[in-house]
Amino acid sequence: MLGEIVSQSRKCRPLVHCMTNYVTANDCANILLACGGSAIMADDPDEAAEITAACGGLVLNMGTPNPRRLEALLRAGQAANRLGHPVVLDPVGVGSSAMRREAGKRLLASVRFAAIRGNATEIAALVHGTAAHRGVDADEAGGDGADGAEESAVRLARESSAIVVATGNTDIVTDGKTVYRVHNGHSMMQAVTGAGCQLSALLGAYVTANPDRPLQAALAAVCAMGLCGEIAHARLSPQDGNASYRNYIIDAVFRLTPETLERGARYETDR
Amino acid sequence: MLGEIVSQSRKCRPLVHCMTNYVTANDCANILLACGGSAIMADDPDEAAEITAACGGLVLNMGTPNPRRLEALLRAGQAANRLGHPVVLDPVGVGSSAMRREAGKRLLASVRFAAIRGNATEIAALVHGTAAHRGVDADEAGGDGADGAEESAVRLARESSAIVVATGNTDIVTDGKTVYRVHNGHSMMQAVTGAGCQLSALLGAYVTANPDRPLQAALAAVCAMGLCGEIAHARLSPQDGNASYRNYIIDAVFRLTPETLERGARYETDR
Amino acid sequence: MLGEIVSQSRKCRPLVHCMTNYVTANDCANILLACGGSAIMADDPDEAAEITAACGGLVLNMGTPNPRRLEALLRAGQAANRLGHPVVLDPVGVGSSAMRREAGKRLLASVRFAAIRGNATEIAALVHGTAAHRGVDADEAGGDGADGAEESAVRLARESSAIVVATGNTDIVTDGKTVYRVHNGHSMMQAVTGAGCQLSALLGAYVTANPDRPLQAALAAVCAMGLCGEIAHARLSPQDGNASYRNYIIDAVFRLTPETLERGARYETDR
Repeated sequence: MLGEIVSQSRKCRPLVHCMTNYVTANDCANILLACGGSAIMADDPDEAAEITAACGGLVLNMGTPNPRRLEALLRAGQAANRLGHPVVLDPVGVGSSAMRREAGKRLLASVRFAAIRGNATEIAALVHGTAAHRGVDADEAGGDGADGAEESAVRLARESSAIVVATGNTDIVTDGKTVYRVHNGHSMMQAVTGAGCQLSALLGAYVTANPDRPLQAALAAVCAMGLCGEIAHARLSPQDGNASYRNYIIDAVFRLTPETLERGARYETDR
Repeated sequence: MLGEIVSQSRKCRPLVHCMTNYVTANDCANILLACGGSAIMADDPDEAAEITAACGGLVLNMGTPNPRRLEALLRAGQAANRLGHPVVLDPVGVGSSAMRREAGKRLLASVRFAAIRGNATEIAALVHGTAAHRGVDADEAGGDGADGAEESAVRLARESSAIVVATGNTDIVTDGKTVYRVHNGHSMMQAVTGAGCQLSALLGAYVTANPDRPLQAALAAVCAMGLCGEIAHARLSPQDGNASYRNYIIDAVFRLTPETLERGARYETDR
Repeated sequence: MLGEIVSQSRKCRPLVHCMTNYVTANDCANILLACGGSAIMADDPDEAAEITAACGGLVLNMGTPNPRRLEALLRAGQAANRLGHPVVLDPVGVGSSAMRREAGKRLLASVRFAAIRGNATEIAALVHGTAAHRGVDADEAGGDGADGAEESAVRLARESSAIVVATGNTDIVTDGKTVYRVHNGHSMMQAVTGAGCQLSALLGAYVTANPDRPLQAALAAVCAMGLCGEIAHARLSPQDGNASYRNYIIDAVFRLTPETLERGARYETDR
């Protein structure tokens, strides 16, 4: 099943409007190319919606925000919604500043997301934001341990109707009903900047190429990224560090076959 | 002949004001260093002209545009014209939005370019823009196949008095009279983000170091980039993908000798 | 002694607000991860101070400036001062434009720096700026040769009360009293874009993890970066160029042990 997501992405060659921060933009563009898709990147409000219309899917990454960029994210998201394009949200550091908290709330309130991908802290902050907005006790936000992450992810999925991915030691993928726990990945991926942004970009390609099965697309993206982290780690020479590792992960996405993903994906679900 | 362009670039060490998008800025800076030059990057209108004055050449890349950045491109281009510095235009996605179409028109109308480098679609869009401006039927823009690309490139070269490079399966290099068709390159280069931006940066260095022979400088840059794509491809291990390939291409530019380019350049011309 | 700086950085895992230009942002983030720290990057005035407060240290890099970004640098610097966080200044191209000269003066006048890192020209331009401000003859700025660099560095250290690092063939590290001359490094590092920015980021991590000994932290960062340039150079294959070299340098920082630095650091001092 997951293999089909990969092959569909190579077949459709999804063009993704990838609005991402300048720190990881190059890696995000290369990972989109690695999975068979390609990227356009435009972050000005005056053209964001028009560029969105020319693509098949949209990724909204909240890193390195500023008022113009946030306005562009909003306009692009609403344009994608009108056109029925899948939209992925990566709420980078959403709990770190008032500007980002407001942006997270506004985007959640104004754009319908196919998928949301963040680390446990970011997912908890988004739930907290929506929760506070609805007068629910902030204490419920939780999100420290794996249980908290799962609870926050499920809750955000239900409230937003999006597939939610909460990455951590165990990655959670849920549509609010089914919960997958993914065990792929390697701890050294934490030493690669923007590994999360890259996963969000990959997720954007997979969900754009597989619009009728976003839960499976998200599960495939999470397993694929983690598996590529394992494959890349096995390649490391004693002198290689996080910079070569970064390249090897994207290389592994480029080389990933449906069969490799089917064999290597490690996940479980209650159902 | 092409070898001299390479050696001249290593000898002059051209300092290029490279105004490029944030997605490919790092790669552009490294490819400028690889060919013996170096980059300064500044994109604010308040300092763009001043930084331009301190350099020998200028590259105007229209990627990730916004109004301030476009204003900076314009001011830098005009400053370079006043100083007699060669200016290269890379009209990234010029047909993709009204903002970019306007910017392309405005830059063409206000700045004299030594060279313009785009893919066939971008070159056709630029011709279309200038054509429409002059009341010429838009249908003439064409530019789908190789023939269309060549026609558009020649026409843009004549209208702008710039050397025009239209990249594709076969790359076109023309001054509006002579047309070179370059057969270097590898299809996997399409899986490297910003390969076109990098070529424009390289072209900026070569034309800055060889101001009296821009057609040859452009031909050398196109052959060199393609040849380095071939050399880099030959290095790939079975586990390497587009990320390692990206590095190997820049590495090959770093190692490129005049002799290697003379031997490896594959191009033809009617004359 | 220098080894302890390295091990302290791996133990404390310093979180650094790294405000750097978009050309080198990715490499700066990866080098911070390589040394055991991590980066947050935010450059809008509306959130810069808030993000700063969540970190342990701050790096202010003046590359690719614009008025909003410069305002953000200022606010972040002042917030870090209020909180007692160490602040590192990298005055990229400070002498290249009026905007940068003004920014350099304003930052020096408004923010207390733990360390300032630039090349000899940048350090001389900063001294010249402050000197002119105080009516001192500009001729004293000097800074062409190694002697001039040392003189400028000592003077800037005394005037700013910061540790000053002036990089060049010989790197100078001084607190205005003790002067270290570092002989690590390889000339090919000049072919890697942002090697200086990366050193400033590394310095930010080391000084954040070792706030009570900034001179030693700066010396360790300069020796470490140079030594990693040597280690990376020894790894180069005949086909590798500056792109692979860039990765290998960060890899070497990732693999750097306290023992390797103790053995490999090459510096001298008059005291």
